[in-house]
Amino acid sequence: MTPANHLSALDAARAIEAGTLSSEALVRACLARIAERNADVRAFTAVDEATALQHAREADRAATGPLRGLPFAVKDVIETADYPTAYGSPIYAGHRPRLDAACVASARERGAVVLGKLATSEFATQTPSDTRNPLNLGHTPGGSSSGSAAAVADFMVPVAFGTQTTASIVRPAAYCGVVGYKPTFGFFNSAGLKPLSPGQDTLGLLARSVADAAFFGFGLHGARLADTPDLRPRLAVCQSRQWAHARPEMAQAIEQLAADAERQGASVQRITLPADIEDLVEMQARLFAFEARQSLAHERLHHSAQFSPRLQRRLDGGLGITPQDYLEMRRRAARGRRQIQALFADVDALLYPPAEGEADAGLADSGSPRFGALWSLLHLPCVSLPIARGPHGLPLGTQVIGAYGDDARLLAVAGFVSRAAAARWNGG
Amino acid sequence: MTPANHLSALDAARAIEAGTLSSEALVRACLARIAERNADVRAFTAVDEATALQHAREADRAATGPLRGLPFAVKDVIETADYPTAYGSPIYAGHRPRLDAACVASARERGAVVLGKLATSEFATQTPSDTRNPLNLGHTPGGSSSGSAAAVADFMVPVAFGTQTTASIVRPAAYCGVVGYKPTFGFFNSAGLKPLSPGQDTLGLLARSVADAAFFGFGLHGARLADTPDLRPRLAVCQSRQWAHARPEMAQAIEQLAADAERQGASVQRITLPADIEDLVEMQARLFAFEARQSLAHERLHHSAQFSPRLQRRLDGGLGITPQDYLEMRRRAARGRRQIQALFADVDALLYPPAEGEADAGLADSGSPRFGALWSLLHLPCVSLPIARGPHGLPLGTQVIGAYGDDARLLAVAGFVSRAAAARWNGG
Repeated sequence: MTPANHLSALDAARAIEAGTLSSEALVRACLARIAERNADVRAFTAVDEATALQHAREADRAATGPLRGLPFAVKDVIETADYPTAYGSPIYAGHRPRLDAACVASARERGAVVLGKLATSEFATQTPSDTRNPLNLGHTPGGSSSGSAAAVADFMVPVAFGTQTTASIVRPAAYCGVVGYKPTFGFFNSAGLKPLSPGQDTLGLLARSVADAAFFGFGLHGARLADTPDLRPRLAVCQSRQWAHARPEMAQAIEQLAADAERQGASVQRITLPADIEDLVEMQARLFAFEARQSLAHERLHHSAQFSPRLQRRLDGGLGITPQDYLEMRRRAARGRRQIQALFADVDALLYPPAEGEADAGLADSGSPRFGALWSLLHLPCVSLPIARGPHGLPLGTQVIGAYGDDARLLAVAGFVSRAAAARWNGG
Repeated sequence: MTPANHLSALDAARAIEAGTLSSEALVRACLARIAERNADVRAFTAVDEATALQHAREADRAATGPLRGLPFAVKDVIETADYPTAYGSPIYAGHRPRLDAACVASARERGAVVLGKLATSEFATQTPSDTRNPLNLGHTPGGSSSGSAAAVADFMVPVAFGTQTTASIVRPAAYCGVVGYKPTFGFFNSAGLKPLSPGQDTLGLLARSVADAAFFGFGLHGARLADTPDLRPRLAVCQSRQWAHARPEMAQAIEQLAADAERQGASVQRITLPADIEDLVEMQARLFAFEARQSLAHERLHHSAQFSPRLQRRLDGGLGITPQDYLEMRRRAARGRRQIQALFADVDALLYPPAEGEADAGLADSGSPRFGALWSLLHLPCVSLPIARGPHGLPLGTQVIGAYGDDARLLAVAGFVSRAAAARWNGG
């Protein structure tokens, strides 16, 4: 029998609904896994067993809620009333917010149970946490949602909130071999998320399947997506200058995926990004630096000695950008969002690398976020999912990218893509 | 000689720069005015004289900063480390945030001095504070930035931060006869602002002149706008179905303004909103309800007994909206933002009422926000400024609305409009 902590969120919810599994048993299985593995993986920064079990027992007594009894965990840039929230920075060691972030409160309202807080890089920037890739402890799990991806991949919890400003969901999902869902900008309410680059900061989910991400993400809003059994999606491999940074195995994996998807009934075309959209990649980093410099103004003025040198340099990158430059960047981003719509006229979703390749060895660097920058800036929904294994046996993923607001279709298409990739991924 | 608290922000900054005025003297003059008038006007919820004076003296000793020594005040939905922040709700009485919001920290970084916190309606929704209109204490100052508009109008402080999700800057500015500047969405970093409807919440300024709003707003970013002496703006009176709600004196005031502006060298055309943009007005309220219901999820789950019945009803309006409805609303809003750009092809700014008319008698209702809804949803920069007096001798304003990201031009045009209206407004 499958241990409860290995169940998908959807199967666990069904079992709880059917009365064949209690939330308490599920939470105990997750807690046992955390006790067994967290010293190695370092995904969780805080777990309160007594509170989690109490909430699980309350869920077992309650009758309703689409997410009833499901444990979830929370990246530590997202505020929680029951747990300290340190935003990955020593400045906030032991800090206890007064309230739960909107996404946490909403998940609780739907019946879900908070299991604990998850490691993040410093303020969700590029200075990593000490989290390890559960598939190979010597390799990075990616970042900044490092704890979220590692905990889900290691069967500590079925689903976790993460956040993405550049590639902080899609990259760790790819590195850890799980699914990352970055919704359309704003789909999950951002109240209680520590702002970094408010024009791009996006809440999302890490889960072990597309179906679980869809179930939890729409369940959070009290809804459920219908199945789409006969889908024949119109896919496009999206070419760009960025592919020069994709390793050969990454490019090959997406080509194989495209062929597999065609065999399963998808149409696959190749499209090239317009040049002025390509140019937004470089701009995204400047927009980020300008906004992050302000978002962290209080810390910068009063606690900058506790910034990592890397964060300090990143914020310095915002110096010298004038407000007129900034408004022009916002105008260009708005134009890009208008232009990109045309790409989806006869395409349901784009295929694009989530990272350069496999997770690298070492924990000092969490990998380049370059492949997420454009889609974060453009506010498009993205799903990252594993499709193959690389030369070191670690996962290679793809991004599946949908039109603005078209999350339901994207999740259906990503489910199709995931099934198309299953043989190569599971057999790898 | 003009009392220091009557000086414009720009004149005060010049006098401080020239050494003919100290920040301490300016802050003392503002504090004296607050001591004299706040019991009646009820604009400030918290003032810490000792801290304000200490920061003023520090500013007097410092050599730099474009806003050096200028006092400003902060709407109480914006977090401050030195002052309690109650968001206009009894739930947070005495709550002390850990850090300054980004806009407050940035203003301090540029040399400005926090004078205190300003009354807001409950969580910046429609249940008013007890603030009174300083021009007639029996009338509403408008909301939700009630304290911000009243304090600036009453010469307690030259400039104040406000926020707008529907009409919460432009309406109180119009009612109190001051200038309200709601920038392009996101121009002032929203970190540390209590989220309500994150897709629309916009930080802005209340000031006594367009020049002051421009000076402080760009000064916050370390910049200064160039003068535009020979401007001949292309204006358009924007017609819409909403005009049916404008009182005759409001419509007449804008017609007179248009004629005055033409005499001063502007061109003025009439334009009509496309029907599908008009329809966004109704949608804005639903989007608001859906997002606010989630933003306040923690309070709704744990403290709803302390919500006003009006807020409770407003949040209930978000019930029954599905996530698919919400995504469709976001798509429609994005389409509206694309469409509205075309209006600005040969127009620099639109003229539009900021409210139905003058401020009404009584404090139980802060007036309808209907005239702000569309422009908040569309993320366009708006300046509200006084143009005439109504039948009760209270101000009538206009909105001047610019293209997305075109704040510099908008502020220049609003300055022109303000000069065109000066005779009628000051002589009224």
